[in-house]
Amino acid sequence: MEIDLNADLGEGFGMYRMGEDEAMMEIVSSANVACGYHAGDPVIMDRTVRMTLGRDIDLGAHVGFPDLLGFGRRPIQADPLELAKYVLYQMGALAGIAKAAGAHLTHMSFHGALGNMAAASYELAEPLVRAVADFDNRIIVSVSTNTQIERAADKIGLRVANTFLADRAYDNEGNLVSRKLEGAVIKDRAAVLARVTQLLEDGTVTTITGQRLKIAAQSILLHGDTPGAVELARTVRGAIESAGGRIVPVSRLIK
Amino acid sequence: MEIDLNADLGEGFGMYRMGEDEAMMEIVSSANVACGYHAGDPVIMDRTVRMTLGRDIDLGAHVGFPDLLGFGRRPIQADPLELAKYVLYQMGALAGIAKAAGAHLTHMSFHGALGNMAAASYELAEPLVRAVADFDNRIIVSVSTNTQIERAADKIGLRVANTFLADRAYDNEGNLVSRKLEGAVIKDRAAVLARVTQLLEDGTVTTITGQRLKIAAQSILLHGDTPGAVELARTVRGAIESAGGRIVPVSRLIK
Amino acid sequence: MEIDLNADLGEGFGMYRMGEDEAMMEIVSSANVACGYHAGDPVIMDRTVRMTLGRDIDLGAHVGFPDLLGFGRRPIQADPLELAKYVLYQMGALAGIAKAAGAHLTHMSFHGALGNMAAASYELAEPLVRAVADFDNRIIVSVSTNTQIERAADKIGLRVANTFLADRAYDNEGNLVSRKLEGAVIKDRAAVLARVTQLLEDGTVTTITGQRLKIAAQSILLHGDTPGAVELARTVRGAIESAGGRIVPVSRLIK
Amino acid sequence: MEIDLNADLGEGFGMYRMGEDEAMMEIVSSANVACGYHAGDPVIMDRTVRMTLGRDIDLGAHVGFPDLLGFGRRPIQADPLELAKYVLYQMGALAGIAKAAGAHLTHMSFHGALGNMAAASYELAEPLVRAVADFDNRIIVSVSTNTQIERAADKIGLRVANTFLADRAYDNEGNLVSRKLEGAVIKDRAAVLARVTQLLEDGTVTTITGQRLKIAAQSILLHGDTPGAVELARTVRGAIESAGGRIVPVSRLIK
Repeated sequence: MEIDLNADLGEGFGMYRMGEDEAMMEIVSSANVACGYHAGDPVIMDRTVRMTLGRDIDLGAHVGFPDLLGFGRRPIQADPLELAKYVLYQMGALAGIAKAAGAHLTHMSFHGALGNMAAASYELAEPLVRAVADFDNRIIVSVSTNTQIERAADKIGLRVANTFLADRAYDNEGNLVSRKLEGAVIKDRAAVLARVTQLLEDGTVTTITGQRLKIAAQSILLHGDTPGAVELARTVRGAIESAGGRIVPVSRLIK
Repeated sequence: MEIDLNADLGEGFGMYRMGEDEAMMEIVSSANVACGYHAGDPVIMDRTVRMTLGRDIDLGAHVGFPDLLGFGRRPIQADPLELAKYVLYQMGALAGIAKAAGAHLTHMSFHGALGNMAAASYELAEPLVRAVADFDNRIIVSVSTNTQIERAADKIGLRVANTFLADRAYDNEGNLVSRKLEGAVIKDRAAVLARVTQLLEDGTVTTITGQRLKIAAQSILLHGDTPGAVELARTVRGAIESAGGRIVPVSRLIK
Repeated sequence: MEIDLNADLGEGFGMYRMGEDEAMMEIVSSANVACGYHAGDPVIMDRTVRMTLGRDIDLGAHVGFPDLLGFGRRPIQADPLELAKYVLYQMGALAGIAKAAGAHLTHMSFHGALGNMAAASYELAEPLVRAVADFDNRIIVSVSTNTQIERAADKIGLRVANTFLADRAYDNEGNLVSRKLEGAVIKDRAAVLARVTQLLEDGTVTTITGQRLKIAAQSILLHGDTPGAVELARTVRGAIESAGGRIVPVSRLIK
Repeated sequence: MEIDLNADLGEGFGMYRMGEDEAMMEIVSSANVACGYHAGDPVIMDRTVRMTLGRDIDLGAHVGFPDLLGFGRRPIQADPLELAKYVLYQMGALAGIAKAAGAHLTHMSFHGALGNMAAASYELAEPLVRAVADFDNRIIVSVSTNTQIERAADKIGLRVANTFLADRAYDNEGNLVSRKLEGAVIKDRAAVLARVTQLLEDGTVTTITGQRLKIAAQSILLHGDTPGAVELARTVRGAIESAGGRIVPVSRLIK
């Protein structure tokens, strides 16, 4: 049994820090790096890219709205074709920094409100994913299953890595339950760990109504930006390895 | 006799426009495109890149300080190694947009205060030019002769295209006379045209003290952002062609 | 018959210019000045404020989303209580510049998407207008009639100046017809002029379906940022004065 | 013996936090609040202002370069008259937020590179301080003694509060030793505390060469943004109070 562990890293800006990137680099097998729009700057991007060097970690672009003030979490109603250019800009910027450091991009994901909006709207997802393909059609799109982003990637011919959020509730259709609803975020560490174990054992998640649902997942998203998050991430990794699972970077899992 | 004609284009931002890019695209053989730091945004970058498609125009990155408010014209004392990451970020961003449009970067130049500071300081020029080389060592650096940027490019092994500023006075060492000094900017159109003709005929410029000086130049910088500038640019092009000269994109001139 | 003529001014940024502010200052009786979020910067704000000095022109704050890239025209779903702080920030910044120049704010209006969203949502309008009142309860809110902004101002006890958009179609409820619908924007100059005259003569507008509707209006919004706009603005002013109307700054019209 | 304790607060941005503002509010008698240029945003400014309410803490504007990426620590060569407008913008913005919260500004200080440059250049300090006076001539300028800022304030007629930096070395002229020189920053807590005690006892500082120098100081700058800083600040306050000193907000100390 093989799975990728990914995390959103490089989310500081200038003097500001967010998350424990160094510690997370010991745990993950793929890093999603902010590209300067919702977080990140060239110096932090470079530092984060270089942390992946010499480790068996895939490098991905984490692409968001141009809204540092809102950390990319506020929906912005913008022209999808213009947003597609923002995607190219961000991926190109990270690719440039990576190239100079001797690294390259294997995957990408959409951050925050941009990700949520594209997950729900094919009209938005299609031009964004097409931009990714136009940039480099070997890029893997990391995304929750059952989303319009996945649908667009399938249509356009980009490979997808389905990401499982171990600390978020799913409904019976396999969609994430909105954060605004009670029970959407699972804070109990034992419960989070149990969900990872269940996913690895039989490929299912127990939905918010208690149903056991098959769910596609080649990767698990870990967090490193809240108290105790790194410790939980380390525990998740340990549990997978104890169960005989192998942590494998996303580009080697997705053919 | 062959020469490149280049101009700084794509210098708008959002709703703001600067310069007459469409008209200039009929005149130049290489375009230096702003990359979102001192000017430009992803949509304008894409539009400008696409204007070069199907024309015999080279695409270059015009890289500056992160200072939209000052249009990149204000010196900022920043760590050269951090500025080097800004160079990578900007070049990568434009390269990403170019790649999706089916274009690629052939050259780059430094804008405004960043260019002036690097021209005068090897300590600054060296890491900036090294970043360019790390990004892609086939990139040509467009720069005035006799600068620390040129020296760094020579040392690092990047090709250089020397740019001639037809409307700026030179001193007897072949350096540009500071804009702050009287006579530094040549506004008389006939005089500008005469300087172009003289450069083409015998490769010299008449310095501010009246001396005739050999000057290296494979490219002439044209402006498109002041009243009458496009007309003057068109006249310069016409004069070169009338004299039997050929306008050739920079990447075909520099071996 | 007395009416105010207002325009959105100071909408440049750094080196970028937008609109013909100098010309418009000869025409309007109140200026709505951008405050650095969707447009404007401290230097342009100061310049624009100083243009009103010695003229009989009221100074107002034109407050928008923090989105220079989208010129404040893109809806952003943000916490209304946070947006209320953005309103204070912008009004305070302009008030600071005005105070140093010997001027003061008489009115304010909401720009672009922020204005459209607040016009349609009491839940958004209420905290924004309350912020205006908390800042200075003598400030007049310039806004179209029939909006949630007007309703909030009435409730909170701020005075309102109803603005008439002479080049925009109204429906039978007195609401602006969405720009996305055909006929929403009236481009024919004679038609625009006729609408102004009709408003002045009997206080009515002919709606998009041809109905004659009473409409409250103490001010007419003029544009200065499109070709011919200044000329049209001048013609509107001339027509009002020829008809015996008096152009009066908004703070003297609204008691 | 009375003295003010001040600290730079509200230095986060969006989701980013910097320093322990809540803890510092229990220690200081005046707060210098970032105004959105080098740090801070309207929501954080409002939160910081409201923390001073109901406490005996003076509210001041901490004004810097428009360089969030560099945290205002990078020198920018800009037109002093333009920078003066930036000062007005920032002070006005904070004053607007303060006014709505029922607070008002008593003092201001210049942050980082802007402060260092103005301290060294009368040509820069004069227009900046004049902007402060034009905004409100009751504002106290917090600044190190022996600076061009102090000189400008004296000339223009603004009151000055001299700030003592307990953890920075002074030379024999009473100037701060550059951070680049060894020994410039005093990290030993006992030494910092001893310097505070000495200042309170006989109004002197021991310079970097060991000389005892009289130094004007009505306020001591405390830090809250490094590990252990809050604890040290608390110790400093305790030491002053144990010695019979009284902590008094700057506006009550400076007549």
